[in-house]
Amino acid sequence: MTKDIKVAIIGVGGVGKAFISQLANFIDRNRSSASVSVVYISRSSAALISKNYQPLSLTAFVPEQLDAAGAPPLSVPDLIQFLKGSGGEAILIDNTSSIDLANQYPDFLNAGIHIATPNKKGFSSEKKLWDDIFAAAGNNGGTGGYVFHEASVGAGLPVISTVKDLVDTGDEITKVEGVFSGTMSFLFNEFAPVGSSDPPRAFSEVVKVAKDAGYTEPDPRDDLNGLDVARKLTILARLSGLDIASPTSFPVQSLIPKPLESASSSQEFMDGLPNFDGDIGKLADDAKREGKVVRFVGSIDVPSKAVKVGLEKFDVSHPIAGLKGSDNIIAFYTKRYGDRALIVQGAGAGAEVTAMGVLSDVIKIIARIK
Amino acid sequence: MTKDIKVAIIGVGGVGKAFISQLANFIDRNRSSASVSVVYISRSSAALISKNYQPLSLTAFVPEQLDAAGAPPLSVPDLIQFLKGSGGEAILIDNTSSIDLANQYPDFLNAGIHIATPNKKGFSSEKKLWDDIFAAAGNNGGTGGYVFHEASVGAGLPVISTVKDLVDTGDEITKVEGVFSGTMSFLFNEFAPVGSSDPPRAFSEVVKVAKDAGYTEPDPRDDLNGLDVARKLTILARLSGLDIASPTSFPVQSLIPKPLESASSSQEFMDGLPNFDGDIGKLADDAKREGKVVRFVGSIDVPSKAVKVGLEKFDVSHPIAGLKGSDNIIAFYTKRYGDRALIVQGAGAGAEVTAMGVLSDVIKIIARIK
Repeated sequence: MTKDIKVAIIGVGGVGKAFISQLANFIDRNRSSASVSVVYISRSSAALISKNYQPLSLTAFVPEQLDAAGAPPLSVPDLIQFLKGSGGEAILIDNTSSIDLANQYPDFLNAGIHIATPNKKGFSSEKKLWDDIFAAAGNNGGTGGYVFHEASVGAGLPVISTVKDLVDTGDEITKVEGVFSGTMSFLFNEFAPVGSSDPPRAFSEVVKVAKDAGYTEPDPRDDLNGLDVARKLTILARLSGLDIASPTSFPVQSLIPKPLESASSSQEFMDGLPNFDGDIGKLADDAKREGKVVRFVGSIDVPSKAVKVGLEKFDVSHPIAGLKGSDNIIAFYTKRYGDRALIVQGAGAGAEVTAMGVLSDVIKIIARIK
Repeated sequence: MTKDIKVAIIGVGGVGKAFISQLANFIDRNRSSASVSVVYISRSSAALISKNYQPLSLTAFVPEQLDAAGAPPLSVPDLIQFLKGSGGEAILIDNTSSIDLANQYPDFLNAGIHIATPNKKGFSSEKKLWDDIFAAAGNNGGTGGYVFHEASVGAGLPVISTVKDLVDTGDEITKVEGVFSGTMSFLFNEFAPVGSSDPPRAFSEVVKVAKDAGYTEPDPRDDLNGLDVARKLTILARLSGLDIASPTSFPVQSLIPKPLESASSSQEFMDGLPNFDGDIGKLADDAKREGKVVRFVGSIDVPSKAVKVGLEKFDVSHPIAGLKGSDNIIAFYTKRYGDRALIVQGAGAGAEVTAMGVLSDVIKIIARIK
């Protein structure tokens, strides 16, 4: 017998909208075998709240409906009470990147509410939050809700699930290495392409093109500071068994030139960036003379507990050098796989593939509670 | 509360032994949260059968214990009755490649017994068996046992689970392409390596080296006939939504020269193979002149329902051309991922990684029934 499952969704940006559309389609396709309904959708300013737990209509949902509805979002304690009041199972979908919400995951889990989220903050911030989340969660046999976060690394790519399968079956991960940021991938695949005979482009010019095309955060410094990659490495290192205090507890190379760290605006930063093209251009030239290219990568060496994020040179025949577009590549070296890595590669960013990662987590939760 | 889970293991060859060792380790590590015990281990000639469902000792298990125990294996009906008699949940591990056992999966599933297996036969033979298995299984909301077969394609690589995640979340797979046989991968990576200036080697010589090193089946024709790859393609095509009648219902190129099909022994085949080195050598030379290499691949084009297995030429810069060792590579093209494939790559054969795929299925079953 299938239990009733109520879903609350917080965040209706790009990923949130794509998720709602995919979930609506999933519910349509699975009417017979599952009883899943959405009873709460919110963003920071407003919420749609179901009356008597009647399913909210997801067809042709647009975020503007939230403002039209006019209700303020529930506080976390009120949301927990609302979801528990249905008497059945409930899943929180956190499609935000809010640390405030992530800080309250243990409360949801302790109340038996499951969580699926692409939000990296809960798993890559202070170690205490990670410990609190997994102490509360039911994933390892406890009584709390299940928490899944596949899309926190590599979007819909099977990255987190692969690490878990390796570790859970008793393999030992020795090294993880790869390109973990779609933006960084695009920047360096354009800036230092393999086998190109074109004259080299200025790094600042590539950043400008990427910014104008929407491939970077609104302020490109949020990509170039390396913190996004550091957060993903923190998650994978913790899953691999390392005790990582925070995403700033290991060396992270920022591509923001020191003098521009204090730029007062994104525009001032972009205007100043060409002054530093010589430095990174020289790195690329040096690499080229060795038959290599520079790439922005992260790596975890488990035996030496060394995690680092930054620029490295790769031989042009290396899989990391040959990436295209904004693809991610993640190579797992383990005891069982030996010298040849298990590799996962593909688009690691984008609303649709991120939403897919969240929905596959929801499907895993449903399989465990039905 | 964790239910008691009884495990029956059939098959104690390379994969079976590795699985027993990994399972013993898993049980040791998870004493607190799971109550998993092995109550039956058999091979075709003999079985170890628990008395009163007491756990069989897995420490330092060697297959010779089965012969020493002297009991004949139970028939399938008797095994089902034995497992159901425990009153708890039960999992059948089929580490054989037997079609006879696969034919009886529906009986196990209908009895509520779960199945985890690397055996391709149940999922790649006549379509009726596939239909019967999934009609009986509980995977899609039914009352039968769960059936998982991750290791039937790519061993421990996340291949089946990735296809399922794509399909279950509503993505549309348009094309699957790759190298699906570790043996074929090794043969062609050696025979036609990228960027080698060495004089080309005879194909028959490469086959002989591979056979002597244990990289092929005892009779290399069992690899060279392409059927192993055809079975894997059948499974992935069915999961992608195509109605494939059998692994011989689409074009499969055999690398066994016609006149050698009737060779009466493996030795006679190997002795005759050098006479045909010219044909495949010419293919490789032609490819080389175009800047390409030949590889033995499988592909599924979903819109045109075209499945095929055989030799194809790839540009030296193509990821399929750049494979090393006996690695598999599987590229999924989907509506959401667009032009850039989701790629999974790594060792797709070997006892340890195959056993890992089976154990990860067991862990998924435990998560669903606890």
